[in-house]
Amino acid sequence: MSMQSIIFEPIGIIHSLHKIKEGTPIQPSRLHRSPGEVELFPEFRAGLKDLEGFSKIFLVFYFHKMTDSLLEVTPYLDDQTRGIFATRAPSRPNPIGLSLVDLVSIESNILKVDGLDILDGTPLLDIKPFIPDIDHAEGISVGWLEGKTPHFKTHKADDRF
Amino acid sequence: MSMQSIIFEPIGIIHSLHKIKEGTPIQPSRLHRSPGEVELFPEFRAGLKDLEGFSKIFLVFYFHKMTDSLLEVTPYLDDQTRGIFATRAPSRPNPIGLSLVDLVSIESNILKVDGLDILDGTPLLDIKPFIPDIDHAEGISVGWLEGKTPHFKTHKADDRF
Repeated sequence: MSMQSIIFEPIGIIHSLHKIKEGTPIQPSRLHRSPGEVELFPEFRAGLKDLEGFSKIFLVFYFHKMTDSLLEVTPYLDDQTRGIFATRAPSRPNPIGLSLVDLVSIESNILKVDGLDILDGTPLLDIKPFIPDIDHAEGISVGWLEGKTPHFKTHKADDRF
Repeated sequence: MSMQSIIFEPIGIIHSLHKIKEGTPIQPSRLHRSPGEVELFPEFRAGLKDLEGFSKIFLVFYFHKMTDSLLEVTPYLDDQTRGIFATRAPSRPNPIGLSLVDLVSIESNILKVDGLDILDGTPLLDIKPFIPDIDHAEGISVGWLEGKTPHFKTHKADDRF
């Protein structure tokens, strides 16, 4: 471990219907419902106060099944290699995942959510409220993904990562 | 360090005009320009391929000045305590920051960006392209922040965190 290492600990576990990578939605799905639960460890429960008023939350998580760190990947929806930072692929130098999901309800330390594109058993690092005024922009460009993003809704993962 | 610890290493450094917390925009500013540079360490440069086509990127970073982890905070724009996960405050159990910024240009391993609400010298953990189809939703609710978010544009940080 280097001098610069940054150490985090999971604050919970994400429970989803996706037990293996293959067939998991490649992004939060809006077409096919994909419900699940976020189990926040009980000691963090006080941090959930006031969260229920938000309809969307970001889950920040650890891609715990990832073993390779690659600087170029061939993403889903594409047949060319792209720089890892121009993709949302998991094989990143720091395998941190970010997904925007629907917050359905909160009971004690359990959040019911929908639109999960996350593997069952994934360690949770953070929860952030989605705030359109700061998390969104219009009229922007999306580079190599131009014209491809509608396929997010129906495309599923394979074994490439 | 527990068995569960997750270890990351910085992949770069964020250079901004904000040398101290006080006076730093509390969120990515659209009204006041706030330019800066993201210095990606040279060994990760290949990961930037194809990123320049995206107008907006998420910076995932480490709140390196944070010493306290609090489960309830009194956020900027508010006079009541809120659960930490219902805010974007830095004093989180895992102090991971997330900001959407404008990508202006890329030269070698340096990204020129704008709209920075991040302290100078902050360690960078990840860069992700902003993809409206998966990172945005409309007609949603924002809980305690309802009606307060226009003030993000003009409000600056004080010393509360």
